[in-house]
Amino acid sequence: MESGILSAPAPAGRGTDRSTSLSRILTLLHRSGPLSRADLTRLTGYNRSTVGTLTADLASLGLAYETDPPAGRVGRPSPLVHPNERVAAVVVHPDVDAVTVGLVGLGGRVHRRVRHDTVTPPSVEETVSITRAVLAGMAPDLAAMDRIAGVGVAVPGLTRTSDGHVLLAPHLGWRNEPLAAPLSQALGLPVFAGNDATLGSVAESLFGAAVDTGNAVYLNGSASGIGGGIIVAGAPLRGADGYAGELGHTLVRSGGEPCHCGRRGCLETEVNLDRLLDVLGLDRADQDTLDAAMEQPQTAEVRAEVDRQLDQLAVALTNFVNIFNPEAIVLGGFLGTLFAANQQRLVDAVAAESMAGLGQRVQLRRAALRSELLLVGAAELAFAPVLAAPSK
Amino acid sequence: MESGILSAPAPAGRGTDRSTSLSRILTLLHRSGPLSRADLTRLTGYNRSTVGTLTADLASLGLAYETDPPAGRVGRPSPLVHPNERVAAVVVHPDVDAVTVGLVGLGGRVHRRVRHDTVTPPSVEETVSITRAVLAGMAPDLAAMDRIAGVGVAVPGLTRTSDGHVLLAPHLGWRNEPLAAPLSQALGLPVFAGNDATLGSVAESLFGAAVDTGNAVYLNGSASGIGGGIIVAGAPLRGADGYAGELGHTLVRSGGEPCHCGRRGCLETEVNLDRLLDVLGLDRADQDTLDAAMEQPQTAEVRAEVDRQLDQLAVALTNFVNIFNPEAIVLGGFLGTLFAANQQRLVDAVAAESMAGLGQRVQLRRAALRSELLLVGAAELAFAPVLAAPSK
Repeated sequence: MESGILSAPAPAGRGTDRSTSLSRILTLLHRSGPLSRADLTRLTGYNRSTVGTLTADLASLGLAYETDPPAGRVGRPSPLVHPNERVAAVVVHPDVDAVTVGLVGLGGRVHRRVRHDTVTPPSVEETVSITRAVLAGMAPDLAAMDRIAGVGVAVPGLTRTSDGHVLLAPHLGWRNEPLAAPLSQALGLPVFAGNDATLGSVAESLFGAAVDTGNAVYLNGSASGIGGGIIVAGAPLRGADGYAGELGHTLVRSGGEPCHCGRRGCLETEVNLDRLLDVLGLDRADQDTLDAAMEQPQTAEVRAEVDRQLDQLAVALTNFVNIFNPEAIVLGGFLGTLFAANQQRLVDAVAAESMAGLGQRVQLRRAALRSELLLVGAAELAFAPVLAAPSK
Repeated sequence: MESGILSAPAPAGRGTDRSTSLSRILTLLHRSGPLSRADLTRLTGYNRSTVGTLTADLASLGLAYETDPPAGRVGRPSPLVHPNERVAAVVVHPDVDAVTVGLVGLGGRVHRRVRHDTVTPPSVEETVSITRAVLAGMAPDLAAMDRIAGVGVAVPGLTRTSDGHVLLAPHLGWRNEPLAAPLSQALGLPVFAGNDATLGSVAESLFGAAVDTGNAVYLNGSASGIGGGIIVAGAPLRGADGYAGELGHTLVRSGGEPCHCGRRGCLETEVNLDRLLDVLGLDRADQDTLDAAMEQPQTAEVRAEVDRQLDQLAVALTNFVNIFNPEAIVLGGFLGTLFAANQQRLVDAVAAESMAGLGQRVQLRRAALRSELLLVGAAELAFAPVLAAPSK
């Protein structure tokens, strides 16, 4: 079983050996950005000289660096400690119409992002080949890094986190593909893979709309359907094999539209990007204009379709509120667009339908990270070993 | 946020201070029963003399005791270390037609169990009063204990674990009841409360049908409806306030029967004990004969109702497989009865309907603990502080 990559740093007084302490400081820097030594002392409970030693250790490991404190402050100046953003992860996101390759630094900074369009959904071989080609083009950027921690892949499908095996990525046509092994062989780097929506939930939880909550449900809608990721007590819910979170394949309408998964009336078939684009007279190539199109005055037909999709979405969100008792539900992709179109309708339906008023407590939020979401989430897979054991 | 009371003991080499080590040894004894010092050495990775010191410490704290090893073994004899079952928890389970009060020792041994029938669902005041009366009758048993760790209450409703406040227990008619406070005042003991199905999942996970899995979904059916408990990476899923796991209030049939929660077609209304008893010509007073009645040859009408309920149950289980990717789903109460009536129908439906064959991997199991389930689960609430810090 994988340990949660979001696990909160250990409280002071437990596990106070050097390795744990280094991990704690580096994790704080990665999540919060630059912090003064005084901040680190306060946040960790370690004493001032211990923090000084640990940040010096991280600097000598090439994982952090210090700068002078901002001028003009009152009191003893405390150096500012930065995560080294030139310690980076290569990230890969194969999707139905493109392979996106990126370079993300510690601290969640996206250095580069290259989207390579494909005519048909890429195979595993094509994904490997495209990634190699894009990285060849990125050679100067890669050379400017101090260290490449590894490769993180966000897969739109059921992905076993232990070895990066893809059980099923329906919209890519992948079934039982050992993705991580050939990619690792081609790139000469360690490769980690996970479900895209689970990684999205991690990114929103670390750097986005759920940063203040320990219990959140994340739901992303795209041309590849609806994926989910759940944060439980600060860590991503993975299940027995890493396949948890297929929230798009839960029932919202008995006897509804047939789904590719074999059931009928799944959330993914009832709340659907193509059906929304259709009624707006758009097609998938116009996805980027969806938000702008939705901000125009709408015909009755569009309003009816938006309301229908919102009502079906409310059925699913009510189930998730009753199941997870989350503090927040974060909506990404076209689900964020739907939500923005009529927030009150969705909020009211969830509040009215959920058990014992739990829906009145949950906050519905639009995802914050948008296009960088999956890159930042996938990078976490590659950073996790470095954050857990900085001195290795 | 509450830490999981099922959290796995820390691995050796982390947190090796005395308090953590005592906690680890006592937790192992509590979950496994008597272990030799040699077993403890092997299981913890501590050296032999450390284990000897720690078990002596636990003995002097009155939490464990040693006996001579069984005779006739080859090699150096290793004393057998027992959890002290006379360190006990008082447990209370208010239900629609009774208040059950019990006394459970470390190691999960049920010393006493008294069911006090009520004509109507007990109020909080009646629950407190009945508990006091039963405990007065149990005075000799209580006096025979070395220590009463506290009181654990299993509530059929939404219960905030931080302070034992009941938000809603629909079948008892409780709403916004501060249960733990008056009970603690009446008994002079610390009181902890949690949702009954969540505590059932904890008990099945520690001592019952899910003891070998870290990721399990537990579903219990009774006259009070259907409750759920989810074990995620070894710990119970609690959500933001402790209200997670209302699996009975997830949709299985659009436009189905109206539910007391305000929705229609909830699992709890479609899969229903009363409807099963009805078709068998039984009523709630005959609940104990349900299993025997189901083992008789059935009319077509009974078979049709059983199949209907199993099919609706399969819709919910498929959702849970897709959401949680569990290793096992454990069915308790009348859901266990339904499952036993036609295991293959349920297994086949979940295998066919779930995403990417995940349902073929999940094991459906009947709950193992039956009548002792909630008592053992509720006792864990009271034992948790002792197990976490034995020397306090």
